[in-house]
Amino acid sequence: MRTRAAIAVQAGKPLEIHEVNLEGPRAGEVLVEIMATGICHTDEFTLSGADPEGLFPAILGHEGAGVVREVGAGVTSVKPGDHVIPLYTPECRQCASCLSGKTNLCTSIRATQGQGLMPDGTSRFSTLDGDPILHYMGCSTFSNFTVLPEVAVAKIREDAPFDKVCYIGCGVTTGVGAVINTAKVEIGAKAVVFGLGGIGLNVIQGLRLAGADMIIGVDLNNEKKEWGERFGMTHFINPSEIGQDLVPYIVNLTKTPFDQIGGADYTFDCTGNVKVMRDALECAHRGWGVSVVIGVAPAGAEISTRPFQLVTGRVWKGSAFGGARGRTDVPKIVDWYMDGKIEIDPMITHKLKLDEINKGFDLMHAGESIRSVVIY
Amino acid sequence: MRTRAAIAVQAGKPLEIHEVNLEGPRAGEVLVEIMATGICHTDEFTLSGADPEGLFPAILGHEGAGVVREVGAGVTSVKPGDHVIPLYTPECRQCASCLSGKTNLCTSIRATQGQGLMPDGTSRFSTLDGDPILHYMGCSTFSNFTVLPEVAVAKIREDAPFDKVCYIGCGVTTGVGAVINTAKVEIGAKAVVFGLGGIGLNVIQGLRLAGADMIIGVDLNNEKKEWGERFGMTHFINPSEIGQDLVPYIVNLTKTPFDQIGGADYTFDCTGNVKVMRDALECAHRGWGVSVVIGVAPAGAEISTRPFQLVTGRVWKGSAFGGARGRTDVPKIVDWYMDGKIEIDPMITHKLKLDEINKGFDLMHAGESIRSVVIY
Ligand SMILES: [Zn+2]
Ligand SMILES: [Zn+2]
Ligand SMILES: [Zn+2]
Ligand SMILES: [Zn+2]
Repeated sequence: MRTRAAIAVQAGKPLEIHEVNLEGPRAGEVLVEIMATGICHTDEFTLSGADPEGLFPAILGHEGAGVVREVGAGVTSVKPGDHVIPLYTPECRQCASCLSGKTNLCTSIRATQGQGLMPDGTSRFSTLDGDPILHYMGCSTFSNFTVLPEVAVAKIREDAPFDKVCYIGCGVTTGVGAVINTAKVEIGAKAVVFGLGGIGLNVIQGLRLAGADMIIGVDLNNEKKEWGERFGMTHFINPSEIGQDLVPYIVNLTKTPFDQIGGADYTFDCTGNVKVMRDALECAHRGWGVSVVIGVAPAGAEISTRPFQLVTGRVWKGSAFGGARGRTDVPKIVDWYMDGKIEIDPMITHKLKLDEINKGFDLMHAGESIRSVVIY
Repeated sequence: MRTRAAIAVQAGKPLEIHEVNLEGPRAGEVLVEIMATGICHTDEFTLSGADPEGLFPAILGHEGAGVVREVGAGVTSVKPGDHVIPLYTPECRQCASCLSGKTNLCTSIRATQGQGLMPDGTSRFSTLDGDPILHYMGCSTFSNFTVLPEVAVAKIREDAPFDKVCYIGCGVTTGVGAVINTAKVEIGAKAVVFGLGGIGLNVIQGLRLAGADMIIGVDLNNEKKEWGERFGMTHFINPSEIGQDLVPYIVNLTKTPFDQIGGADYTFDCTGNVKVMRDALECAHRGWGVSVVIGVAPAGAEISTRPFQLVTGRVWKGSAFGGARGRTDVPKIVDWYMDGKIEIDPMITHKLKLDEINKGFDLMHAGESIRSVVIY
């Protein structure tokens, strides 16, 4: 079949909107009509050329929602008409990772997905001239129709609006999940969120959902204060305005009459800046503070600290896709949205047509959007 | 009273054996006759001058066992005649740290302990000329008699031999506890131990106790192979003899037909070398591997890695005194020794008199001892 798609022709160039050829689903695959897709910083990271593993030409996009239109041989878990969210982190429920019960990082299709290919080592996309175009993160939601492995779609309820729940395909789950699955924040905790973009705001609402007492947001942009408070932030810090080092400032802020040591129970880096990651670790509470890296760092960047920070009880960990097992947890997060436990609508600041997709990247660069969503 | 002690007069000099004055216990303190004390690398770290927080003159030693001879006002948890192990990590059961239930790093007397003083800000030790001598790690077990805060002694059973269980005051608990309390290793796990000195061997026997399947020891000294196997090590790696990088070697070694990702479930650094700490993190299993820093790094040394290592599921943490709450857990470890669940006797390679204490440091430098114990 033919479908319209935004093609990343090469690094640093705007996406190009074209008709492309799309082969139907092979065994274990499904054809999905994407109804809406968010534009995420990871798409920008790859498109800019900063991603050392970026491949071109490719159809980007990994934060979508849509409807199954056709299934390949052997597909049993979804059928045409089912509403789904594509999963860049699949959940096969068969591999050593899935069965460990300790991680969401399913490895069943990792090698081919990283090469921009379906699990059989080929692409379903090609130009009208017949030249292959690569998949991206196993999703390619910047195409109106796309093919996905069965293990990479989460079936969701049919009353959920595509133009909102597409955001659960990446940003919402990454932020809320980091709190709930990775950090396992408990009621009454004190937490710090570094970077109040789309991920950071979702961490904040995850903390509100988890019952945290103190939700401290840190951002260099004062306009983020109102955004943070909108989702549950209790304290805002602009590091450029406190007139002292950030770590002791946060340690002091979190002291109580009983606890004169101070430090946050949980901290989250949503910046991708390795210096911020260090601050996030070091303002965690001596003895038990957990710091979670969510942001994606530039290629080659390294985090560092004195090992004394760990020996005195701080824990440094990371979170990918919020530690969520996609097929199992994404439908639950959709329920939370439908039940009003989490918010999405105010974060969708811009709605675009596919033709306008490059404007979505411009809005991101200008810091004007929290999330732009393309509606097909 | 007067007592004999080995005094660290200044950094880099041998200890000097002298009679010293010892004041009796004040309120909340106890006088303990030390019956035996191990000589630990941390004593050496301070004596050498490498410890930036080292203070002189002081009476070192923090791995002892003895008998309570006198108690100060208000002491209720021990009485004269009780057998005890001094605790450089106290357990007050009252402070924010103790009551968090999340850490063993009691902070009730931290400030004064770090200054070489009792909680009231003074020292009990002085020269016969009346010049003060500092305490060390709140213990000063290189003195035949010493004064300790009540919260810094663990009462133990009376049939436990002092010349063996003194090692539980530091090395045994640090190693075994890192496995059981900090990493919480489960039956069937695969683990790697870097550095097969006194701590590493205790990590190994902790792993055996925890039921680990694969216990890989890493050391540049082939003579450590036999030592490791003595306590449960199943595989030995000398990194200088494998002809390839250590991390992929370990990842391959831990692969199974079902798990083709590979990596250790738990890794432990017992070297204090920050490059080794990085290897220990990076050979941990993608998705869930936990790496525990135990070794003490040189002043100013920093650990580093790409944040991708954390985002893909590895956890970096540290352990001090094996995560053990001293008054609660040390008596249990003494029981484990008395019940034959853990071994100590073969690790005590040398027994010395106080006059020979500098020989203990020489044996450590020469790599000839696992543990030297001074018997009073
Ligand atoms: Zn994304
Ligand atoms: Zn899987
Ligand atoms: Zn020690
Ligand atoms: Zn305490």
